[in-house]
Amino acid sequence: MDGQKSVRLGVKKPLRLDCGVELGPFSVAYRTSGKLNKDKSNAILVCHALTGDQYFIGPHPTTGRPGWWEPMVGPGKPLDTDRFFIICANVLGGCIGTTGPTDINAATGKPYGLRFPVITIADMVRAQALLLDELGISDLFCVTGGSMGGMQALQWAASYPERVFSAVPIATAARHTAQNIAFHEVGRQAIMADPDWHGGDYQQHGTRPVRGLAVARMAAHITYLSEAALHRKFGRELQDRKALSYGFDADFQVESYLRHQGITFVDRFDANSYLYITRAMDYFDLAAEHGGVLANAFHGIRTRFCLFSFTSDWLFPTNESKDIVRALNAAAADVSFVEIETDKGHDAFLLDEPEFHATLAGFLDGAADHRGSSRSATK
Amino acid sequence: MDGQKSVRLGVKKPLRLDCGVELGPFSVAYRTSGKLNKDKSNAILVCHALTGDQYFIGPHPTTGRPGWWEPMVGPGKPLDTDRFFIICANVLGGCIGTTGPTDINAATGKPYGLRFPVITIADMVRAQALLLDELGISDLFCVTGGSMGGMQALQWAASYPERVFSAVPIATAARHTAQNIAFHEVGRQAIMADPDWHGGDYQQHGTRPVRGLAVARMAAHITYLSEAALHRKFGRELQDRKALSYGFDADFQVESYLRHQGITFVDRFDANSYLYITRAMDYFDLAAEHGGVLANAFHGIRTRFCLFSFTSDWLFPTNESKDIVRALNAAAADVSFVEIETDKGHDAFLLDEPEFHATLAGFLDGAADHRGSSRSATK
Repeated sequence: MDGQKSVRLGVKKPLRLDCGVELGPFSVAYRTSGKLNKDKSNAILVCHALTGDQYFIGPHPTTGRPGWWEPMVGPGKPLDTDRFFIICANVLGGCIGTTGPTDINAATGKPYGLRFPVITIADMVRAQALLLDELGISDLFCVTGGSMGGMQALQWAASYPERVFSAVPIATAARHTAQNIAFHEVGRQAIMADPDWHGGDYQQHGTRPVRGLAVARMAAHITYLSEAALHRKFGRELQDRKALSYGFDADFQVESYLRHQGITFVDRFDANSYLYITRAMDYFDLAAEHGGVLANAFHGIRTRFCLFSFTSDWLFPTNESKDIVRALNAAAADVSFVEIETDKGHDAFLLDEPEFHATLAGFLDGAADHRGSSRSATK
Repeated sequence: MDGQKSVRLGVKKPLRLDCGVELGPFSVAYRTSGKLNKDKSNAILVCHALTGDQYFIGPHPTTGRPGWWEPMVGPGKPLDTDRFFIICANVLGGCIGTTGPTDINAATGKPYGLRFPVITIADMVRAQALLLDELGISDLFCVTGGSMGGMQALQWAASYPERVFSAVPIATAARHTAQNIAFHEVGRQAIMADPDWHGGDYQQHGTRPVRGLAVARMAAHITYLSEAALHRKFGRELQDRKALSYGFDADFQVESYLRHQGITFVDRFDANSYLYITRAMDYFDLAAEHGGVLANAFHGIRTRFCLFSFTSDWLFPTNESKDIVRALNAAAADVSFVEIETDKGHDAFLLDEPEFHATLAGFLDGAADHRGSSRSATK
């Protein structure tokens, strides 16, 4: 019973955001796969990354492509839809059904644009918690996600430890680094430099800052891959030609690939959402909310953690995961950590990485055993 | 007797470029420091990087700032102007006095724009060789430069081995990688996405694509630094505020710094030159000119080489220098190689790195001894 749904939240009582704004009512669009068991103990919340959405399984309504986590999710896969009830919601500030800057501001009757409140990772998680309330799910068997999804998984454990039996933050960090903020700022400046952006009010102007958004995507996309992967996939191979053109067309395959990434991205994503979601990642600093000591975010926590990093991921390198592991150890938490050897860079969390998948499946099995939920019991 | 000069080259006979176009006459702007000795044996050619220029010593006429290699060049410094006659020329395609896309195309009476021929690193070096002919300098005591300057130094040794007694390629590569091409392509797309670019004909439109050029600079600038340096310099420190603004101003110091880099760059650089010079770097592949075997570029060479790389340089990492060293060894060339430990990233070649400077000074001393040029003899 897979489904694509939307729910109105914050109707009776608005959601108080970190910035102080009270937001409500607002919509959260989500998708589920698998079946919730009777005692509602088999729910897994999957949190998506910056440019992800609720289509962790596809087809995606805009692109027609498979879901972004299909290698991981499905019958017999690590996130086994025969055993688990899997939920994935578009984040607050997003553009695929959850309320964000493209939506109409009820107060003005016009799209929010930059009048939408700046949201944080904690705000995204608060909205997801309201969604679970609405679904009558008091606690999660697991919360997981890669990159920004991993930030949300960490925030879930810190904000609602009693609701999270296990957490699997993947290829992530407890705070965004200066270099990562810098790459995000380049993307934001590319969008804002596009005259079609109109100070964020492009909907009223009947335009879309697609050129700026494509440049933002191209810059970001490089950071998702490793130098080794780019070399292996493209090297200096030429695109549809035998010799250099001595011009500014896409001579090299890597140029053609990158242009394609930019062009296709703008069909499925909104520029203002890109500003808001990158900002949420930049603002993420879990230790800062806890007196500057990350371990304080997790004191007394009973959640079982399993963290993953990838050797060639230079956006969220292994040392970032190790910082989290150290803090969890300092908080006497139950934590496993595996660094996966791969040349696929940050994007490895989206790809078919056998050791990663096997280890994650094993962790979930162990967690289910620990909870006294046998395979049959989860049905 | 420091000087800023310009010379017309290719007057009697045009310069045949790699793309097949015959260019001439054209101007080369250059600057010198120190004094050429009687036997003209103390000349060092300094080759500048992508956004460098002939102002290796300052003040720069536009910015008023010191020259880009002042830590390295001057009396008593490694490139000792009391001993050596140092020449630095703005590259072909540049925008600081050497003929490039902003110049008037004599055939049409209008600025070249994208009708300027695409140039290569080898073309830049050919133009420099004509400059040396004009100066009556048959051979160089040394040719050196970092990044694209290092590419030129390698090309000099390959194209004119008999004119190069020693070569010091720094933080460079014998071919531009897929990742580096990708970063350049992002910059070019940012420029071309700016409506003020007008297909390259912005001069006729009275505009300048400053927003696109600033974004290109910002993206590139991140690659010049290391994650460690960004963390050390900025971390997550806020700019002129005590708390997050929950907006899209430059909350973080690293954002403010990056914006400043973009804004100031456009005052001193031309967008079309940025396209042409990045293209020249992308096209650089010294092995490809020699049957795909880099060693073939250097067979029988008598030039003495000293290569440098920097541990935290991820744009031109150490393995790129090692590839060159291996090829030089395979060609039985005389080669030293030093990897300098630093957290300053690619930009380390521009900065005061004591071990780097001391080693380079020592190499030049040894080369001078080897040549039988004592300190007194060079005067």
